[in-house]
Amino acid sequence: MSEELRQRALKYHAEPRPGKIATAITKPCEDQQALSLAYTPGVAAPVREIAADAHNAYRYTNKGNLVAVITDGTAVLGLGNVGTLAGKPVMEGKAVLFKRFADVDVFDIEVDSDTPEQFIETVARIAPTFGGINLEDIAAPHCFVIEEALIERLNIPVFHDDQHGTAIIIAAGLLNAIELQGKRLEDAKIVCLGAGAAGIASMRLLLTLGMAKENLTLVDRKGVVHSGRDDLNVYKREFARGTEQRSLADAMAGADVFIGVSGPDLLTTEMLKSMADKPVVFALSNPDPEIRPETALAARDDLIMATGRSDYPNQVNNVLGFPFIFRGALDVQARRINTEMQVAAVHALRDLAREPVPQAVLDGYGINNLSYGPSYIIPKPIDHRLIDRIPPAVAKAAVDSGVARQPYPAHYPKL
Amino acid sequence: MSEELRQRALKYHAEPRPGKIATAITKPCEDQQALSLAYTPGVAAPVREIAADAHNAYRYTNKGNLVAVITDGTAVLGLGNVGTLAGKPVMEGKAVLFKRFADVDVFDIEVDSDTPEQFIETVARIAPTFGGINLEDIAAPHCFVIEEALIERLNIPVFHDDQHGTAIIIAAGLLNAIELQGKRLEDAKIVCLGAGAAGIASMRLLLTLGMAKENLTLVDRKGVVHSGRDDLNVYKREFARGTEQRSLADAMAGADVFIGVSGPDLLTTEMLKSMADKPVVFALSNPDPEIRPETALAARDDLIMATGRSDYPNQVNNVLGFPFIFRGALDVQARRINTEMQVAAVHALRDLAREPVPQAVLDGYGINNLSYGPSYIIPKPIDHRLIDRIPPAVAKAAVDSGVARQPYPAHYPKL
Repeated sequence: MSEELRQRALKYHAEPRPGKIATAITKPCEDQQALSLAYTPGVAAPVREIAADAHNAYRYTNKGNLVAVITDGTAVLGLGNVGTLAGKPVMEGKAVLFKRFADVDVFDIEVDSDTPEQFIETVARIAPTFGGINLEDIAAPHCFVIEEALIERLNIPVFHDDQHGTAIIIAAGLLNAIELQGKRLEDAKIVCLGAGAAGIASMRLLLTLGMAKENLTLVDRKGVVHSGRDDLNVYKREFARGTEQRSLADAMAGADVFIGVSGPDLLTTEMLKSMADKPVVFALSNPDPEIRPETALAARDDLIMATGRSDYPNQVNNVLGFPFIFRGALDVQARRINTEMQVAAVHALRDLAREPVPQAVLDGYGINNLSYGPSYIIPKPIDHRLIDRIPPAVAKAAVDSGVARQPYPAHYPKL
Repeated sequence: MSEELRQRALKYHAEPRPGKIATAITKPCEDQQALSLAYTPGVAAPVREIAADAHNAYRYTNKGNLVAVITDGTAVLGLGNVGTLAGKPVMEGKAVLFKRFADVDVFDIEVDSDTPEQFIETVARIAPTFGGINLEDIAAPHCFVIEEALIERLNIPVFHDDQHGTAIIIAAGLLNAIELQGKRLEDAKIVCLGAGAAGIASMRLLLTLGMAKENLTLVDRKGVVHSGRDDLNVYKREFARGTEQRSLADAMAGADVFIGVSGPDLLTTEMLKSMADKPVVFALSNPDPEIRPETALAARDDLIMATGRSDYPNQVNNVLGFPFIFRGALDVQARRINTEMQVAAVHALRDLAREPVPQAVLDGYGINNLSYGPSYIIPKPIDHRLIDRIPPAVAKAAVDSGVARQPYPAHYPKL
């Protein structure tokens, strides 16, 4: 980060008041009359209704629009284990994005825990407060255990965005990129560099979408994840191959797709040149990708490339997902965000990128033209159509798959 | 509650959207430029600052203005143990009051716990999120254990409002009432009916303020708390007297002050008539007091009376305290809300009631006149002077008693 950006960011966070979010009162509260409804004696009426049936909390409190963004601070951005409290600016930032893009209210919660069990216990105990839980910036492999346990224990959506949010955006972009290269996901040879939260979840989702397991090579810090290794956790073992390949370079030869969710500059031009014709490269390490787009495109001009950065085309950005996915899930009071709902979000994002881009979106980015193709495989974050497309798709999938407590909302577009 | 009020309260809570609070974004977030400061890549700058020194969270996040209002739902209003979630309308109501009266941001948290230990553990683990913790509607005697443990464990203010908030308002009103009756707290014979959170905390605070322990008779459901009883918890035992008195009626004979924090209609006119000359009766059970003011004043015209109700004079209402006490504590980053700060709040409230009431306050209540005397011993909740008086008094006491991390704020009035 440049010193200039650093100073601007610190000033933005500090002035005129610290932080980025606050409480807002949504009902009248100026006079004694209003306060007697908001607090005693009137407040006893909704208390009694909820005591009689806990589900009435969705009717008389903000629970149904309230998501907890919760971290233990063990994997904040690319900075690693920065401690409980250092994650707070990111969690508040997430709250800003939830509100800005989908009018979802968020409490950020930073949990001081030493073990996954302590974290799980804490989150489960405060869960009644919320309509959904977005887990954030929790290191692998604990993040898998934690999410599984909470999904099992709670009856509200629990969604680890670094896993599924990332996987959904990657999948949407990848479906378009592969199609534009004239290939099929079912046949594509895929190399995934990085076997943490994002890597594992993305590969699981791609399997659901049709990727053949035998075409996938997962690579971690120690090289190819193969069945001869004895240092694999159960999540990596799920993808271990019987293969002679050992290095990333071995795996890349002839590959159709590279997905990097690892670290900067790990992909060389030699590896890139060894890929099959018309390759797809998602170099998503932030802020420095596995290979720079200018380097990659200089080495191969038949490439479709995506990064995590806003200053290059094809930004894989989680903000395309989580606000809208939770919006749809909350609006039908979904008990969870299941695979069907995630696939629905993938398809909605994929389809939206194929449509003509409205002038307002172009104006928002100060650009003249944007149309479906190698430099535009995924919608832009500030695209007002997202809120009209993603939540309905997610809500419908929740209803169809039986995890919704409420019907498809009347105010949503007919699907 | 009348059916009409009940219906209005339910409608207020349900429409146009459920609940009473939401998230508000306090910084620009419309365009890509702003979002790059609020979230990646800019957000990494405050993350690094806080990772280097956790105290920087007060500078770059909302922690310093953020209070958690936390309950386990075991003693909600006068309704008892209504369950974890049924307390949520009350906690959201508290959030409304904190924001409305003192611009303090609040996350309400409902904790699903079976034991005090589970509750303590949960609150301690999420505490880094907050600048202060307001415990609410937790049944005695667990509330004492819980508060003590959390105060010991955390370095931010932990304040059980049903204890100390109530005690502070009672003490402020009582100091004025006793003075108006021409008596002194040091000499007054006091009967307290109710030995839960409010009763115990109020008696502790009155001891600090000068009440003589031998002049106090505490009475619970089983009668006078005397040293011959073997059914007393440690909190009641603190106030057990060696006495022959057994019933409330025994205790009331000759008493100067009655404080009721118990239940409806427990004080009879006979008991009232047996009190000393010029008595003080605080009948604070809500919504139905220990004795109706019209009944009490018909039986004795030398009485000064207070209730918890807004439709009688002298309302003992916690909203006079907690928003302003936390405001003062947060503004100096106090490590706790100690006795010195509580006493400062008592004196500031007491003193404010003795001043002439501004026209704006009269207009707000649609009344023509209000002046210090038997029908006005404590400020009214909608008195704009509270925010100018209570926080400075509390902040100064925090600084003077050594629990403040920051100096007395420059923007506060000189004291």
